[in-house]
Amino acid sequence: MAEFMTETELRSPVVPCPGTAEERWGRADDAGPLEGHEAAALLECTRAVVDPELHAALESLPGAMRRIALYHFGRQHADGTPATGDAGKAIRPALVLAAAAALGGPAARTAAVRAAVAVELVHNVTLLHDDVMDRDTSRRHRPTAWTVFGVTDAILAGDALQALALRLLAEDPHPAAGPAAARLADCVVELCAGQYTDTNLERGAPEGVTLAEVLAMAEARTGALLGCACALGALYAGAGPGDVAALDGFGRQAGLAFQLIDDVIGIWGDPRHTGKPAGADLAARKKSLPVVAALSTGTEAAAELAELYGTPCVAGDTEGVALAALAVERAGGRDWAQAEAADRMARAVQELSRAVPDPEAAGGLLMLAEFVTRRGS
Amino acid sequence: MAEFMTETELRSPVVPCPGTAEERWGRADDAGPLEGHEAAALLECTRAVVDPELHAALESLPGAMRRIALYHFGRQHADGTPATGDAGKAIRPALVLAAAAALGGPAARTAAVRAAVAVELVHNVTLLHDDVMDRDTSRRHRPTAWTVFGVTDAILAGDALQALALRLLAEDPHPAAGPAAARLADCVVELCAGQYTDTNLERGAPEGVTLAEVLAMAEARTGALLGCACALGALYAGAGPGDVAALDGFGRQAGLAFQLIDDVIGIWGDPRHTGKPAGADLAARKKSLPVVAALSTGTEAAAELAELYGTPCVAGDTEGVALAALAVERAGGRDWAQAEAADRMARAVQELSRAVPDPEAAGGLLMLAEFVTRRGS
Repeated sequence: MAEFMTETELRSPVVPCPGTAEERWGRADDAGPLEGHEAAALLECTRAVVDPELHAALESLPGAMRRIALYHFGRQHADGTPATGDAGKAIRPALVLAAAAALGGPAARTAAVRAAVAVELVHNVTLLHDDVMDRDTSRRHRPTAWTVFGVTDAILAGDALQALALRLLAEDPHPAAGPAAARLADCVVELCAGQYTDTNLERGAPEGVTLAEVLAMAEARTGALLGCACALGALYAGAGPGDVAALDGFGRQAGLAFQLIDDVIGIWGDPRHTGKPAGADLAARKKSLPVVAALSTGTEAAAELAELYGTPCVAGDTEGVALAALAVERAGGRDWAQAEAADRMARAVQELSRAVPDPEAAGGLLMLAEFVTRRGS
Repeated sequence: MAEFMTETELRSPVVPCPGTAEERWGRADDAGPLEGHEAAALLECTRAVVDPELHAALESLPGAMRRIALYHFGRQHADGTPATGDAGKAIRPALVLAAAAALGGPAARTAAVRAAVAVELVHNVTLLHDDVMDRDTSRRHRPTAWTVFGVTDAILAGDALQALALRLLAEDPHPAAGPAAARLADCVVELCAGQYTDTNLERGAPEGVTLAEVLAMAEARTGALLGCACALGALYAGAGPGDVAALDGFGRQAGLAFQLIDDVIGIWGDPRHTGKPAGADLAARKKSLPVVAALSTGTEAAAELAELYGTPCVAGDTEGVALAALAVERAGGRDWAQAEAADRMARAVQELSRAVPDPEAAGGLLMLAEFVTRRGS
């Protein structure tokens, strides 16, 4: 299979995806299965298109807000010197651009860059604020913003980034900008409600949580913004309400598939890849999807798991974590999560085919959905 | 002077400002000095127009976010039962509507209701989040949202309200809605930067703070949103950039005048009116405008004040607080603040007269500016 983009194309900051690569934005190679390096190239290409706009937006912030934001995005160290840290995989902006390309071709993709930046900003608002709320100390292999600048500054930077996201759309003369802003704002509300539910589910007893609740929460927390990203791309392509809804559904279902796989990795993932100790979610007694699925089976293994979850995990108790992992597996939590992820992906593909029946045009979106959900296989 | 509105007009929820009152929205009585009860009637009229839209917006939030927001706005008790608590004076929405009326008459005022709600929502985002950051436990004579629902929920409710504010404008088909949204988003960024500076100034030593810094901070924290409110009204009246800037300047200067008076009240205000103990700002060692003005005089009283501010105030030390108040007064901090407030009001009036030379049309705005700054006299 030919390389998706040449090295030169990937490096060029101004016209990063010209010629054939540009035309192939929305297309998968139909000669064989989708491959990870094609998706990686698509993501790199997205970064090349989105980063200058994103950077300009961040630079427009006043001093202190700019510094916190640039640190969070990995562009500066805590002392304000330049850095080349990890700014995330740009999945969401890639979905915006791929959806625009799938329904409206290269012109729509170019028009949607600002919306892609807005979605990426909103995603980072949730990261900044969630890290404060969850007291998470590490993000993208660096200390989280609140640990460096304090809680107040991290909250303010998040507030400023939300405003920046919606200002980008408010200043965009494109006819889709208004509906896109309304949709993105709605999505922020859904993300807040999802984080609220998550926090409250984690506070409560494991027995009080149903699988339907955690699935709804995962859809709000993860599916909503992926769906919104795809819907915004569709809006910029001039799509009608049906196609916009189908693209939203595609993103939501792919997001749920991603969350299911992510939760599987949170239990059985290789610490060398996850950067977290094995079974970190179990040690934290997290009510992740496989855990809640296992608990709801009424099996002997479920009872064992419930007992383990009844007391906090002692630091370093690898045996206890291994026992919990085994209990989830014996109760069928792992199998269920993997089957459910496959089912959600199937639904995602079905939604997509409603709006984009041409498999070639749908290729970019499929490639991204496969990429985010493949990590677990 | 005739009553601004009849009782019946004030109570009517649907057409709250009909007939003569409607026509007089933008007019002060030119027969004598502006009176507080006229402004109060204007504010009550604003609430009657704005509240149904505001309520509908809050009701559109999902369950948990709605409950926190309704509590914060005084519409529900903590247990979710209906309340008739204080939702604030509605100064900012009144400025939006009065500015629209001053430049575009009743039609512009009616068109600007959604923008007035958006501004009020943004104001309440800052209250919700500032209370978390400043650990303030009381707001409008009730426990703050974070003390009732927790820090996480108060942060999330604030995030959701910001989204709600910008969604209202994104969904507004009025041609001014886009520029208004961009301006409101810019204002949010300025408010964040102002709160950041405030927090950092409060953390540092009193000697390190200049009067220019606290004035700039007060403009960002208080003036920016009052200016934005007036600017949004002007935009909805179809005003050009010059008039919009003049209205923004009017609101900013009036906001600074308000802050100066508010700081005077924070030291010398009557506890029966402020709801706080006498000299609360001094006891908290707050670097308010009169304090920083006093400290920067290089007088003997300034040195005394600096020494008092060098150690935290012991709870109940009314003598120490009284000494600090006397030192600020002897150093000229009180006189300076009052003169500066008068100067800022003069500048506000000058800005306003650039855009609205007709004193009758400018009456509503002047009335509101007088109202917010009069409390101290």
